[in-house]
Amino acid sequence: MLNVDELATPCLLIDADVLDRNVAAMGSVLPGARLRPHVKAHKCTALAAAQYAAGHTTFTCATPREVVGMSRAGIGDDLLLANVTVDPVRLKAMAALGLPVTVAIDSDATLDAAVAAGLRRCLVDVNVGLPRCGVAPDAAGALADRARALGMEVRGVMGYEGHLMMVNGRAERQAAVERSMALLRQAHADVGGEIVSAGGTGTYDMHADTGVTEVQAGSYALMDTQYGTLGLPFEQALHVLGTVISVCADWAVADVGLKALGMDHGNPSIVGGEVWFCSDEHVTFSPTAPVAVGDRVRIVPAHIDPTMSMHEAAWITSSGEVIDRWPIDLRGW
Amino acid sequence: MLNVDELATPCLLIDADVLDRNVAAMGSVLPGARLRPHVKAHKCTALAAAQYAAGHTTFTCATPREVVGMSRAGIGDDLLLANVTVDPVRLKAMAALGLPVTVAIDSDATLDAAVAAGLRRCLVDVNVGLPRCGVAPDAAGALADRARALGMEVRGVMGYEGHLMMVNGRAERQAAVERSMALLRQAHADVGGEIVSAGGTGTYDMHADTGVTEVQAGSYALMDTQYGTLGLPFEQALHVLGTVISVCADWAVADVGLKALGMDHGNPSIVGGEVWFCSDEHVTFSPTAPVAVGDRVRIVPAHIDPTMSMHEAAWITSSGEVIDRWPIDLRGW
Repeated sequence: MLNVDELATPCLLIDADVLDRNVAAMGSVLPGARLRPHVKAHKCTALAAAQYAAGHTTFTCATPREVVGMSRAGIGDDLLLANVTVDPVRLKAMAALGLPVTVAIDSDATLDAAVAAGLRRCLVDVNVGLPRCGVAPDAAGALADRARALGMEVRGVMGYEGHLMMVNGRAERQAAVERSMALLRQAHADVGGEIVSAGGTGTYDMHADTGVTEVQAGSYALMDTQYGTLGLPFEQALHVLGTVISVCADWAVADVGLKALGMDHGNPSIVGGEVWFCSDEHVTFSPTAPVAVGDRVRIVPAHIDPTMSMHEAAWITSSGEVIDRWPIDLRGW
Repeated sequence: MLNVDELATPCLLIDADVLDRNVAAMGSVLPGARLRPHVKAHKCTALAAAQYAAGHTTFTCATPREVVGMSRAGIGDDLLLANVTVDPVRLKAMAALGLPVTVAIDSDATLDAAVAAGLRRCLVDVNVGLPRCGVAPDAAGALADRARALGMEVRGVMGYEGHLMMVNGRAERQAAVERSMALLRQAHADVGGEIVSAGGTGTYDMHADTGVTEVQAGSYALMDTQYGTLGLPFEQALHVLGTVISVCADWAVADVGLKALGMDHGNPSIVGGEVWFCSDEHVTFSPTAPVAVGDRVRIVPAHIDPTMSMHEAAWITSSGEVIDRWPIDLRGW
């Protein structure tokens, strides 16, 4: 295997030891099917296999390609598309897997599309405060009735409190989660089914008494600077490795830019320096100690999900050695 | 060919008629080798071929993979890597093309790496005010002397005034460009060579009297909302096509999110609505007229370059019909 210093840059580096600790920390709070890991955060079936090996056999997906890719990788015990779509080709591709795929529905149109494609299991996606997908809580029961009348197994409800992930202060966040999940429980009372699916990395340990049966966290495995501000028991496992390509008296430049970093949460951080700005293929930064052209630097992305989807593969390290290469094989739609 | 309404979403849509007009508008100001089109803005050899057919046979690249990909596509008359690198494998891959590849150098280290790889042509990259790569103007001559002593052909200088692209007001921008290019001329006097390469879409028509022999513009071909604010004679040729997947009284949601859009310049725009925010796979927006699940929407990215590199291909339309599919085949490094 290659040495880290021999890797072409920019590239993703996953510290397997840190990843293992993150997976173990999550599993100690949410063992087995209490966690339905969200693969959109890493888009990597090899990483999903590590989560599976830790006892999590149910998975959350955001795109049909993630569902199909997980199935091809042999991790198809119980896949949830926690998203709505009316794409007939992609819905049929999921139905053709012959696996117990569950899809979210939040309208007659998304229900009809799922039924027409031959899908037979669904969750009713309920709006719990985030202005995105999801039926109004008081309309969830009627949609479930209609789904059952069309032959669907309605397994329960889901509702993503994404607007609460970054609420400052644990007590404030917990209180907001409770109010949001009251809406989901109300909908669940009308919908029925055994599943109440919600949550994310920012609220993963706030669902002991919310009625939620499974949490859809994903970012916890690799982490990013935004979730890093919350004081969670998860460490940064993912870095983008770069090479210093230019140095002058006041700043240095490395070869990690906008095409290697999800930028919606703002600038990344850099180990051993302060980031000034990013360009297509560059990050300009002020190093805290002198650097030279050819030195390696490690960048921490502000948002893990879109960062992963920009790369073809990640290099896996343990004790500083490269031990494997994992394709980011769930990219696209 | 497919109808636009049959395309799976999210996907890139390029209006070939608008693209042709943009290419013609640029060519009327900067014909032939006065423009060295930058392929980083589109990462698509089929689009580069259209620029070639319009008379531009010299090209600018930001990564070795762009250089190698352009060569494989048969567009290798005169390729410039307008970036510095010390990656020996990638430098050798460019040298092995057997084409007149020119690379930027801005330090002894980047010069030595190019020489060691067998590359024989360079430009001296000069810092003209953007805190990024580039040797100080008064050190450019010595670097050129050293390059020639090592057997390199020094073709001239380059200097990217990227910090000036969005200077408000044409007169203010022109004056700032003039000051910046005075630095480049000073360096060129010491370096020699026939090439003075600079500029971008925001300053493409400000180099008539700056001493610049070629302009490295790229975004003009497809455009984005940021360059759209400058009043340039280029139209929006690129949209990200989405499908409405959820609608309620106050907002609607389409399936175009952070993994389909470069977000460093902020939120995209949407035709027929106002964008609220983007999630990994969603854009929440308020439509100006009622929309229904299944409707198609067109999103205009805030930054074209990273948007293109997130997609495998672009669909080409003319008069509303899909006429071709162009792979985005220069992605990666």
